[in-house]
Amino acid sequence: MSKRMMHLVAYLKTGPTAVHGGGWRHPEARLDDILEPERYEHIARELEAACFDACFFADLLGLYDIHKGSLDSYVKYGGQISYLDPMTVLPIMARATSRLGLGATLSTTFFNAYHLARALGSLDVLSKGRVAWNIVTSATDLEAQNFGFEQILPREVRYDHADEVLEACLALWNSWDADAFVQNKQQGVYADPSKVHYANYKGRWVSTRGPLSIPRSPQGHPVLMQAGSSERGRRFAARWAELIFTAHGSLAAMQAFYTDIKGRRAHEGREPEDCKILVQTTVVVAETDAIAREKAEYLNTLAHQELTLAMSSSNVGADLSKLTGDATLADLQGNQGIQGSVDFLKVKAQASGMDFKTTAQQALPDQIVGTAQGVADQLQALFEARACDGFVVSPIYHPGSHEAFCRSVVPELQRRGLFRTQYSGHTLRDNLKD
Amino acid sequence: MSKRMMHLVAYLKTGPTAVHGGGWRHPEARLDDILEPERYEHIARELEAACFDACFFADLLGLYDIHKGSLDSYVKYGGQISYLDPMTVLPIMARATSRLGLGATLSTTFFNAYHLARALGSLDVLSKGRVAWNIVTSATDLEAQNFGFEQILPREVRYDHADEVLEACLALWNSWDADAFVQNKQQGVYADPSKVHYANYKGRWVSTRGPLSIPRSPQGHPVLMQAGSSERGRRFAARWAELIFTAHGSLAAMQAFYTDIKGRRAHEGREPEDCKILVQTTVVVAETDAIAREKAEYLNTLAHQELTLAMSSSNVGADLSKLTGDATLADLQGNQGIQGSVDFLKVKAQASGMDFKTTAQQALPDQIVGTAQGVADQLQALFEARACDGFVVSPIYHPGSHEAFCRSVVPELQRRGLFRTQYSGHTLRDNLKD
Repeated sequence: MSKRMMHLVAYLKTGPTAVHGGGWRHPEARLDDILEPERYEHIARELEAACFDACFFADLLGLYDIHKGSLDSYVKYGGQISYLDPMTVLPIMARATSRLGLGATLSTTFFNAYHLARALGSLDVLSKGRVAWNIVTSATDLEAQNFGFEQILPREVRYDHADEVLEACLALWNSWDADAFVQNKQQGVYADPSKVHYANYKGRWVSTRGPLSIPRSPQGHPVLMQAGSSERGRRFAARWAELIFTAHGSLAAMQAFYTDIKGRRAHEGREPEDCKILVQTTVVVAETDAIAREKAEYLNTLAHQELTLAMSSSNVGADLSKLTGDATLADLQGNQGIQGSVDFLKVKAQASGMDFKTTAQQALPDQIVGTAQGVADQLQALFEARACDGFVVSPIYHPGSHEAFCRSVVPELQRRGLFRTQYSGHTLRDNLKD
Repeated sequence: MSKRMMHLVAYLKTGPTAVHGGGWRHPEARLDDILEPERYEHIARELEAACFDACFFADLLGLYDIHKGSLDSYVKYGGQISYLDPMTVLPIMARATSRLGLGATLSTTFFNAYHLARALGSLDVLSKGRVAWNIVTSATDLEAQNFGFEQILPREVRYDHADEVLEACLALWNSWDADAFVQNKQQGVYADPSKVHYANYKGRWVSTRGPLSIPRSPQGHPVLMQAGSSERGRRFAARWAELIFTAHGSLAAMQAFYTDIKGRRAHEGREPEDCKILVQTTVVVAETDAIAREKAEYLNTLAHQELTLAMSSSNVGADLSKLTGDATLADLQGNQGIQGSVDFLKVKAQASGMDFKTTAQQALPDQIVGTAQGVADQLQALFEARACDGFVVSPIYHPGSHEAFCRSVVPELQRRGLFRTQYSGHTLRDNLKD
């Protein structure tokens, strides 16, 4: 058996901030190119030069206004807004690269299965098999209201519905056999109709006849990526996901999640190693430990506490400004919110001894801080402790955070034989098998 | 008042055939690159070098199987299939050009208003204001069945619904004022919340709260393009469209349509000249009239009659193989079909004295055939007779048809002062005002 290799995926947003509300204020952070193709081409080339498995765009179908019922703090303080539709940016990044995987976050709740299969399948064909679909069921009423509904469906229903969307998409992606094309000009035969199939999928909520108009991509269909942490989300992930990303407040929590998912996977009769679990991480790397620590502290001063609290409100799906007196999170939360974010903050609160709201107000992403060697040590330790199969690396500021990681931490991981020095496959799915 | 200038838009498909079923069999037709970005970049650069106003992709959310209830003739003989989702191809073409307009066909019936506004708005921002939306309501049951419905809604309802989708999209596109961004790192102020607005649109079928996450594009919102020919389609076009494309079997029919739409436009209190009407045309140009005629005849021999009839079936929304004995088109057609295509074939049948089915079997696109001078003469005559404000130029084979037009007919139109020799504006809307 060949040596177990680490996998790296870059977290991106089409906006000023990825996961840290103050990053855009860093002196070297670029703001002039947020709406320009060059920004995204540059980072794609940088990540590909470092042999990253993939990058992916987090996304939201709206602007967060859960906190105080207002979008003011997000807009004013530079919150995590996804300006551009990732599906219009990714084709440009596909064209600037040849091996980097390209991930899009798309909602099973708000997009029709036929559209999902066609849009993702089309990009998968154009990129020659490099697309990942980060499957979300969407968790906010604000997105529901943008799409014409009063509120979001309960989690269980969203996931049951998502199962059908996945079944429908897979049926559609099997419409064209790989050898359907004939293209014989003399005989006037373009393709073989016996190699094009209807999907004829009928579920409880979802149905689609097909065939899909998209010929088969080199990797068959996009890599399925997921981040569910609730019980229902884990069942969904174990069934479908080839790539899982997650965030946990402690090593023990990471290991418990890792063991749980790999066990569920085996229980589903699928190879546990064909599903890679990546932990979301934010890195501050510098020449010395002291510089790195000062840099991390400096960056943390840039984040407005009101925005940090607003971002926590968005993540847990409740207006945390109301969390006073006897009000508990359960009182506020209703149907929205991401279970993983709630768990994450609870673990943090317990560890620090602070209350939930204070924890949420200071909830900047966990950071691994140090020299390239020190950061690599920590990543290696997590990887070898089976806390994860690799990392989703979130930048604090653009493009400096990803550049620093690619130029110093990646070469150190490569020297240690933990990370590839060249791509072994042409498709994303091939590269994930390293 | 400056001289009236002709407008040119190129018709494209992400498949082997645009409007002529035999074109892909031409010896010079490229087939190896249909799924490659380079194909679309090349044609975009060629069209921009010739100062075309725009190109646009026709599209269908499925594979036609109206004819004999089967997709065999489309697949086998190289019919008009839209393999790739145009919205994944257009960003790549945007990146390869700087002035060419970029049009996508998107259905108001199958896409949610928020998604339409975001996807089109995002591409409009990335391309710096060069996007056109070819608005369709979709007319086929096969598309409805791909999207989980049994059949397509009646035309009147589709258009009433489309009116609401347009109202919702325009409200969403007004979410961000052009001067909303502050980006002051020292003060920590990213944007001005008072310049970001909710849409709060509530119609009978469509509602959306907003705001849209996309900042304002340089042209405000995408140019609205439409091709409706029915009475209801004309009302819709007169209300919304800035660019109309149409096909008619005779000069008189073109002039009648032109006068009708411009009159309706004035009746709506809008400037008739702000809505350009383009006639769909297919050109075969060569060194001499004799060569051009032989070339056109040769190309027509390449189209399989079964495919031509199947394409006619798709256009009118009825299985024309059943058009025998006493069956009339009305018996077969039901709820599907495009009024303009029916009218077109009726005019052709009347002029030729052939029955409808025979006409449909031979219904290759009308072609303007001749030398560059001869073709320019005919285009000029139609333009000056107020049959149109310009042309949607459909290629027979790729990339030769568009290349020949750009390299010989366009320079001739430019010599006559009928067409621009450079772009006057930066946005598509600006260039349409020439």
